[in-house]
Amino acid sequence: MTKTQQVRLARRPSGLPATDTWSVVSEELPAITAGEILVKVDLVSVDPAMRGWLNDVRSYRPPVGVGDVMRSLDIATVVESAHPGFSVGDNVSGVFGVTEYAISDGRGVSTVDLRVAPAAAWLGVLGIPGMTAYFGLLEVGKLRVGETVVISAAAGAVGSVAGQIAKAMGATVIGIASGAEKCRRLTEELSFDAAIDDHSEDVVRRLRELAPQGLDVYFDNVGGEILDAALANLRRGARIVICGVLDPDNESELVPGPSRYMALLFFRATMAGFVVSDYADRYGEAVAKIAQWRDEGKLEAREHVVEGGVARFGEALNIVLTGANNGKLVLAM
Amino acid sequence: MTKTQQVRLARRPSGLPATDTWSVVSEELPAITAGEILVKVDLVSVDPAMRGWLNDVRSYRPPVGVGDVMRSLDIATVVESAHPGFSVGDNVSGVFGVTEYAISDGRGVSTVDLRVAPAAAWLGVLGIPGMTAYFGLLEVGKLRVGETVVISAAAGAVGSVAGQIAKAMGATVIGIASGAEKCRRLTEELSFDAAIDDHSEDVVRRLRELAPQGLDVYFDNVGGEILDAALANLRRGARIVICGVLDPDNESELVPGPSRYMALLFFRATMAGFVVSDYADRYGEAVAKIAQWRDEGKLEAREHVVEGGVARFGEALNIVLTGANNGKLVLAM
Repeated sequence: MTKTQQVRLARRPSGLPATDTWSVVSEELPAITAGEILVKVDLVSVDPAMRGWLNDVRSYRPPVGVGDVMRSLDIATVVESAHPGFSVGDNVSGVFGVTEYAISDGRGVSTVDLRVAPAAAWLGVLGIPGMTAYFGLLEVGKLRVGETVVISAAAGAVGSVAGQIAKAMGATVIGIASGAEKCRRLTEELSFDAAIDDHSEDVVRRLRELAPQGLDVYFDNVGGEILDAALANLRRGARIVICGVLDPDNESELVPGPSRYMALLFFRATMAGFVVSDYADRYGEAVAKIAQWRDEGKLEAREHVVEGGVARFGEALNIVLTGANNGKLVLAM
Repeated sequence: MTKTQQVRLARRPSGLPATDTWSVVSEELPAITAGEILVKVDLVSVDPAMRGWLNDVRSYRPPVGVGDVMRSLDIATVVESAHPGFSVGDNVSGVFGVTEYAISDGRGVSTVDLRVAPAAAWLGVLGIPGMTAYFGLLEVGKLRVGETVVISAAAGAVGSVAGQIAKAMGATVIGIASGAEKCRRLTEELSFDAAIDDHSEDVVRRLRELAPQGLDVYFDNVGGEILDAALANLRRGARIVICGVLDPDNESELVPGPSRYMALLFFRATMAGFVVSDYADRYGEAVAKIAQWRDEGKLEAREHVVEGGVARFGEALNIVLTGANNGKLVLAM
């Protein structure tokens, strides 16, 4: 019997989650049986997409049920094993949830090599944000050397990796972020060619100045007016990658659609969505490539670590939902 | 010297063109010189896209200037030739404008074979509407046998051909049109599998009933709520072909964007625009294929012919801009 503290969904929030959204409960886990492992969670990945899982709506993934342990991707250590594929002491990645300990049958669990990169990086540049940036740019955006790429929410977990990958692939990269400090970081620390502060600058006009020939790829993490600003500045044959929408208030409400979508016709452009898990069987390829860029110093991985375990999960989630994080946010257990 | 009556743009309209939009003037054409032809226009193609050319805005084609002869694609007969590529009596297709006679240097002019199909069909199923339907479905929509296709403005010039081409290619085809008579024609005369009347039916619900597995290809000729209804009913991997938007009031104003565009992400779908002239070097391939389907009885070509020449151009254009045409509209000179 192992005691574990867990974060459960107490009630569905409307708008930003609040303290009554969550309950922290203590559970006793049973002994593992044949084919199972017991893991101790070390790091929890905290992501904007989590907000969508709290709504009772049809989406690419079922919602988290009221009363259920909050879903999360974690880095963990195997502490007991009755599974032939895992040994005690293995470092693993898996969807164990926001919990101190978990039992798993090993499905969807993979080992991670901490000699390649530290644990937090396996949730960032080598984790879902890195995979999202990589396959979004290459497969959906079909990025080619010499093209101009614009990335919104560029200081975020996905955006910051996407910009650096695009640079490593030989593109000119413009980031859009909120606030002077984030914009400074994009150009001075993350090798972006230029940054636009959407809090203080006219994005349409600045895009026209910075990319007078138009954009080849727009990697959209926010939707709304910024998506329209990109549509107004496409180059012929441009590709728009719909990665997500920043809508902490309520994802079940429809956001305004992009008014300038007819630009797709004028510019013979494409707008496509994707879900990164569709590329799961090719994660190895992306991990190898990103680890190489990281070793070559082409890709700075920054993680924003919140200490304090399950008690601080709600607070950590709201940091990403309000865009207050600087880099990939992880909760240390 | 040849006398010709021409329709010129007198002033830019706001909303639907009115009588003061146009002026009908009489001109004397000079004698042709080496490399030129004089043609007598037989039929003028009248299309919704013409409305967009009247706005002084940046688009895929420059606007028609105030005072200029109205641009149009015509079927004409060569009446004098000083061009090695054309003989007197040749039937040709070209952008001669809304005029009785025109002089051309032969650029963009091609001969049409009236033994393959009558002149009006060369502006319809074998003309731009046919080319738009063919390349939109095959190249942009990537339609495959057995898939489900939905077409809006399905009784129009492009939509009616697109539906029949999709049927000829082995798809299940649902048409959306306004009014019972148009819907009847789709299923009874044009071999559509089903029709939805967007004047009297709930399009979202009917699409769900008729295509419970979702749509593979949506061929959009209208935008707006119908585009959102399609987005709500996609199948995974769906392709949305943005062909046009029916907005006779004023194309310079932004229409509301598709609120449900995030469905592109959930369904891993693509929305792409195109301009048919990009495929001009492949029109021969499409003409051959469509003529074959037509000969096999798989493709009924209906043209809506307005008689009366230049004096009735304004009236003819407003017929298509208000969706009152039944089939491809041509003006007989």
